[in-house]
Amino acid sequence: MSLIKEIALKASQAAKVLAGVSTDTKNQVLQAMANALEAQQQQIIEANRQDLSQADELGLSAAMVDRLTLTPARVADMAQGLRTLASLEDPVGKTRLQAERPNGLKVEKMRIPLGVVCMIYEARPNVTADAGALCFKSGNAVILRGGKEALASSLAISAILQQVLEQFNLPAALISVVPNPDRALMQELMEQQGLIDVIIPRGGEGLIRYVTENSKVPVIQHFKGVCHLYIDRDADINQALSLLVNGKTQRTGVCNALEGCLVHKDIAADFLPLAAEALKEKSVFINGCEQTAQHIQVGKVLKEEEFGQEYLDLEIAIRQVDNVDAALAHIDRFGSHHTEVICTTNEETAARFQRLVDASVVMWNASSRFSDGAELGLGAEIGIATTKLHAYGPMGLEALTAEKFVVTGSGQIKG
Amino acid sequence: MSLIKEIALKASQAAKVLAGVSTDTKNQVLQAMANALEAQQQQIIEANRQDLSQADELGLSAAMVDRLTLTPARVADMAQGLRTLASLEDPVGKTRLQAERPNGLKVEKMRIPLGVVCMIYEARPNVTADAGALCFKSGNAVILRGGKEALASSLAISAILQQVLEQFNLPAALISVVPNPDRALMQELMEQQGLIDVIIPRGGEGLIRYVTENSKVPVIQHFKGVCHLYIDRDADINQALSLLVNGKTQRTGVCNALEGCLVHKDIAADFLPLAAEALKEKSVFINGCEQTAQHIQVGKVLKEEEFGQEYLDLEIAIRQVDNVDAALAHIDRFGSHHTEVICTTNEETAARFQRLVDASVVMWNASSRFSDGAELGLGAEIGIATTKLHAYGPMGLEALTAEKFVVTGSGQIKG
Repeated sequence: MSLIKEIALKASQAAKVLAGVSTDTKNQVLQAMANALEAQQQQIIEANRQDLSQADELGLSAAMVDRLTLTPARVADMAQGLRTLASLEDPVGKTRLQAERPNGLKVEKMRIPLGVVCMIYEARPNVTADAGALCFKSGNAVILRGGKEALASSLAISAILQQVLEQFNLPAALISVVPNPDRALMQELMEQQGLIDVIIPRGGEGLIRYVTENSKVPVIQHFKGVCHLYIDRDADINQALSLLVNGKTQRTGVCNALEGCLVHKDIAADFLPLAAEALKEKSVFINGCEQTAQHIQVGKVLKEEEFGQEYLDLEIAIRQVDNVDAALAHIDRFGSHHTEVICTTNEETAARFQRLVDASVVMWNASSRFSDGAELGLGAEIGIATTKLHAYGPMGLEALTAEKFVVTGSGQIKG
Repeated sequence: MSLIKEIALKASQAAKVLAGVSTDTKNQVLQAMANALEAQQQQIIEANRQDLSQADELGLSAAMVDRLTLTPARVADMAQGLRTLASLEDPVGKTRLQAERPNGLKVEKMRIPLGVVCMIYEARPNVTADAGALCFKSGNAVILRGGKEALASSLAISAILQQVLEQFNLPAALISVVPNPDRALMQELMEQQGLIDVIIPRGGEGLIRYVTENSKVPVIQHFKGVCHLYIDRDADINQALSLLVNGKTQRTGVCNALEGCLVHKDIAADFLPLAAEALKEKSVFINGCEQTAQHIQVGKVLKEEEFGQEYLDLEIAIRQVDNVDAALAHIDRFGSHHTEVICTTNEETAARFQRLVDASVVMWNASSRFSDGAELGLGAEIGIATTKLHAYGPMGLEALTAEKFVVTGSGQIKG
């Protein structure tokens, strides 16, 4: 049997064992894992140094090296993440009534684990602990296939988690790491339909497209974030300025940062000069449409097809629009189904926007930067889905489960 | 632009129009469609005659010809199905509270349509009306790619539905039929990621495997039904007999018919002779394990690897098991994630079975034959998913929607 087949088979068998484990036990395991990560911090950091020593050779950018680096504080954060998960409600086994039929059948839906989740990701060693724990709490086995950049760190972290599993007489295969970053093995992972239930790739658009194109196992996709803030005619101008500056500048390299701002024409003359001043104070480079350029000085005048860029930097595209429907049309064309925001005091306009925008998260009078699992109350997230099948938006514990029908009768037969 | 690309693009644009249409209007359209199908029954039946005239040449089996044949009564059933859908609750726009955050953000989830659904199916003209109406009510555009056997019927039905759409100033592309059953066009459909959101194949296992292997658009799979009835030690014997006979014989060629019966060893001596008598009265051919053969005469003694067949006929496999866990292990190996039934008076055993069986529908003291969308209260179904991603079990209106996050604030920014 090939290495990958064996990993997938063991994970699948382990998932069946986990299905019978109580919430209490799962929470005890998570607490013990958190303690073990902290107690064996030194081992993790040493393994991480080994990864870091190859960073130059692998040509990692400064941002990648930053994501790769583990410190005692970052290990403590990881442990804290596991403790938070232990405190969250377990979705598995939850039921909701669907129907009570005229013949007396009671129809419910019950949440169950998906089975085996496979994460394919790049140089983020923290994903090993986060995804391992999220999958464990939601009753799933996980196969972690991280990039070669973080392999030593990932193996050190998973070894600690596996020791704890074994202390509780649970199979170590519940949290498996593919020990070889060979692309051929990744391809083989993507062919384990029947053993692996879902693949969640996290990383650059290239990786996600590659997995989506080549996988025979269903994939949950997380593409880029081109998020917009629409400033309505009825916006509170100070609120709008605050949402714009926070969404664009609080952190720039993330998928929930603002990349575009749409301004209603009736408020443009009042709003835009103040916006330009506030953005320039934060050194934001302003691109704008021709109408925008009539109100403020823009660094570059954008043509229609130049909108929709994911700058991931101190740069923004501003466009004046005639009304909320024009804003919706712009987002429909250039948005990325991630997060869209409206700033308005008009409830009707807000409701229309919230209902019609096709984005996984729609905010009214709140910063786009709140679009993540922790801020939305999920406790943690395993990714942000930007396609609608199975999950849409930040994925927490519930998104790692399915629902089956559970029917209770008293001997009913079909006539 | 190719024919398929044009169909997919128009469907995608039409779906955006439908997103803004009220529930009342959708229900009026469905009522009007039902009336139009009945009023233009003659056209449908004439087109159907054209399909039937080629049935011999295409080598259709008697069962396929039966499914293909439309009569006034069957057209009336179709119309009635549309009226039922009009009476069902619209899932689109429904919200549920997720969290109220310490910073005052209110986090809800709101149901939204998936977008564009593509049905790939064989010789079932009724799918054209059923799937068309289910997708319409749930806010989705649908592209129907039926087999060549039923093409004239499908085109006649869809033409009537499209006329009604146009009477209500809605785009006809909301319900499109691919007018050419060429396999190359089907392949092209499966490459319209970005325009088509999900493909639902209905038909034989070969078709479903072909679509799953080749599609770049996500696929919801419905494989075979190998359903079991487990007769527990604490079963009511009369109830068990009734569930067995009904599940096996009420209709045999369907995926929710019983194919296997597992009998607890402590009840086998009492139950099996009565079961054999009842099954023989209905001319059921009995296969059984060696222990079963010690209690009753079996037509064939089955070896381990001969279990798990989908007979779709008056034939069954009976096996004696030591306890509920042995029943669970058998189902885990031979079941098809469709429907599994336990017959017992013991609540604890039932709860264990309902929680641990990995099947999309788990019944306690009820016939497997109730495992369909109408009987479970969904009103109608577009298919039965036997894999867990996005939907598991009979898929009704809700399974044709997704949920987005809708967040309401008062100017919150991230610190």
